Amino acid sequence: MSETNERLDPALAAGNRRQLAGYRATHFLWEVREKVATVTLNRPERKNPLTFESYAELRDLFAQLKYADDVTAVVVTGAGGNFCSGGDVHEIIGPLVRLKAPELLMFTRMTGDLVRTMRACPQPIVAAIDGVCAGAGAIVAMASDVRLGTARSKTAFLFNRVGLAGCDMGACSILPHIIGQGRASELLFTGRALGGEEGERWGFFNRLCAPEALLDEAQALAREFAQGPTFANGITKTMLHQEWAMTVDQALEAEAQAQAICMMTEDFSRAYHAFVAKTRPRFEGN
Amino acid sequence: MSETNERLDPALAAGNRRQLAGYRATHFLWEVREKVATVTLNRPERKNPLTFESYAELRDLFAQLKYADDVTAVVVTGAGGNFCSGGDVHEIIGPLVRLKAPELLMFTRMTGDLVRTMRACPQPIVAAIDGVCAGAGAIVAMASDVRLGTARSKTAFLFNRVGLAGCDMGACSILPHIIGQGRASELLFTGRALGGEEGERWGFFNRLCAPEALLDEAQALAREFAQGPTFANGITKTMLHQEWAMTVDQALEAEAQAQAICMMTEDFSRAYHAFVAKTRPRFEGN
Amino acid sequence: MSETNERLDPALAAGNRRQLAGYRATHFLWEVREKVATVTLNRPERKNPLTFESYAELRDLFAQLKYADDVTAVVVTGAGGNFCSGGDVHEIIGPLVRLKAPELLMFTRMTGDLVRTMRACPQPIVAAIDGVCAGAGAIVAMASDVRLGTARSKTAFLFNRVGLAGCDMGACSILPHIIGQGRASELLFTGRALGGEEGERWGFFNRLCAPEALLDEAQALAREFAQGPTFANGITKTMLHQEWAMTVDQALEAEAQAQAICMMTEDFSRAYHAFVAKTRPRFEGN
Repeated sequence: MSETNERLDPALAAGNRRQLAGYRATHFLWEVREKVATVTLNRPERKNPLTFESYAELRDLFAQLKYADDVTAVVVTGAGGNFCSGGDVHEIIGPLVRLKAPELLMFTRMTGDLVRTMRACPQPIVAAIDGVCAGAGAIVAMASDVRLGTARSKTAFLFNRVGLAGCDMGACSILPHIIGQGRASELLFTGRALGGEEGERWGFFNRLCAPEALLDEAQALAREFAQGPTFANGITKTMLHQEWAMTVDQALEAEAQAQAICMMTEDFSRAYHAFVAKTRPRFEGN
Repeated sequence: MSETNERLDPALAAGNRRQLAGYRATHFLWEVREKVATVTLNRPERKNPLTFESYAELRDLFAQLKYADDVTAVVVTGAGGNFCSGGDVHEIIGPLVRLKAPELLMFTRMTGDLVRTMRACPQPIVAAIDGVCAGAGAIVAMASDVRLGTARSKTAFLFNRVGLAGCDMGACSILPHIIGQGRASELLFTGRALGGEEGERWGFFNRLCAPEALLDEAQALAREFAQGPTFANGITKTMLHQEWAMTVDQALEAEAQAQAICMMTEDFSRAYHAFVAKTRPRFEGN
Repeated sequence: MSETNERLDPALAAGNRRQLAGYRATHFLWEVREKVATVTLNRPERKNPLTFESYAELRDLFAQLKYADDVTAVVVTGAGGNFCSGGDVHEIIGPLVRLKAPELLMFTRMTGDLVRTMRACPQPIVAAIDGVCAGAGAIVAMASDVRLGTARSKTAFLFNRVGLAGCDMGACSILPHIIGQGRASELLFTGRALGGEEGERWGFFNRLCAPEALLDEAQALAREFAQGPTFANGITKTMLHQEWAMTVDQALEAEAQAQAICMMTEDFSRAYHAFVAKTRPRFEGN
């Protein structure tokens, strides 16, 4: 992210707060309305592949989102009727076959870090998936919090089709948690495409939408998140991540602490007083 | 639990055995037939909300169940066509908004401890869920072992609707294990109600029943558990809990030990001899 | 495995490589075609029960598969329209009821070690399940990577029917990961049979086949695996196992390393060049 896009809040000059509504993206589209950001992968003629540069910019942007408070939910989508065709064959795969171990690890760590920052930011991420959703594109979908799809969408964890393992960017950990171990194993061993209806039935998609309504519905859902108690939403996301490999007893103590923090927010108090007054609560994320 | 309800078995005077068939509950109904206990949340005019007192009594009762052998399965249900509307807005939420951090943590630890004792007791718990099942009510359903629902039931992890995080009483750990990470994320971020048919399709409900048959079917299932090898059932429940965050290799050793204990029971021997004699085994939980 | 079946590759005389295509099994059928091995449990008059000897031979064979490169996928099935009826009542259960603790633990560790070696070998295992699939048979199905079933198949984790706990050979860890915690709990507490359609709906079966086509379809799927990048497939299987109880952040680093290894294979390079040349890649597992 360029220096000019980082505008530290004067009141937090010594701190980390970021303002990202005005961020100008280089390798994809970035638009913020009512605190909902929309990332649009935008190389439609190639079905929106990722490049070294777009990977890195996405990773850095999601890392910044951790400290941003002017964006409280994110939609990720692709232009032109496809989500993302994955790592560009010519711009990524070609160079990779010539790299040595330390450079390859630097690459796989970078791609993994995109998932890491998507999971670490407090904003719920809604993926809006139409058409082709393959390779790293399938991973970006998987690493989102909620997925809306279309019946015609085709999601393929196709790594083994290009000679690689299914363990790419967290897939062997995250995908089984979403669709179960047996179904994840099949997708990762075969690389076959998961259709929209099958994906909804398996819990990969939260619901299917008509292609022409997909982005609107994804943004409406993200807006619902953005109008909710966004501080608490961020804690929900953090705890879903933190508790991934905890015992139930550890999770109970972790949630007791996390929820106690949320009970000290004004949002909680406002919700109570709105309920008593039979009005609708207004949440402010504090 | 009052002193008068604790009757130590004379033969185990130095021990911990509890007899709970005669327990007299204060804040809900408690009935035991053929070793199957039924907990009925019973403030139907308010859809059976929980209060500080009913939380604490439930927590203590499930803690005692760990050492009871006159109750071998438990049904949890609600009176009047609803399961439970969660923490009472006036009796719980109101006071909470005025508490400070240490007191809030004391509260969230207490509610978490109800889940802890429900998971730690050896008795399988069958939740019979009709109508409203919201907030802490949804948690009690989630913390049960098996859930029977009705088509009209509405289960809502509505914490974010009142300004709180979805990480309440273990939800960010337990719910994803039941319905998958994507569907759990959606429910926790939106607070929306899960319908009966959707809940069955997602594996939240083990099956749906007609409202008028729900309690009977739940008690019949619990009776089936109670007539089975109850010591072994308790070990099954313990190991489902213990292995939550183990590796497969750790789980294999843990199960080798646990099952070896069960192979030393008379129930196992009786089942073998009944099979050879072509009769039906009688289990005694020892 | 007899000495005569172990043929160390001369080029790896000091090493561990095993050749198993010519292995002659004693307690089941073993056939290898195009690097796909088929294990057929073959006591159809008794619905293919396991004995101490067949358990041990299966365990040892899967252990050897870890170091074999002439078998790159495995199908497990049963003869005569049934998969496996579990531990033989007369040859296993009878003796067990007379054993003492150390001997029982030796037995449960041996059965657990069959699951351990099935999970530790790099070959994807496809279970082809028709008819009865009960007890240890259900476990062998569960411990496979992908399961094809039939509508008439009946899979029963029936341990509690014989007085035992559901925690047998990893079931309390693995089964919830496949079908979810609530459904696994029900099956393990009741011991009831899971039908084919229900099993497909729950994700236990990857798909259902007509009984007469089942073995062909399972072998076709295994052949697809065997013709893929088998080294990478083995890494996929290893990582699905390794990441079972990792945090997401640990999994991301583990996958970065594992995938970097795969990016150094000729299979990856061949796939890239085949794509550029618009030909179909040929994988060699190196």
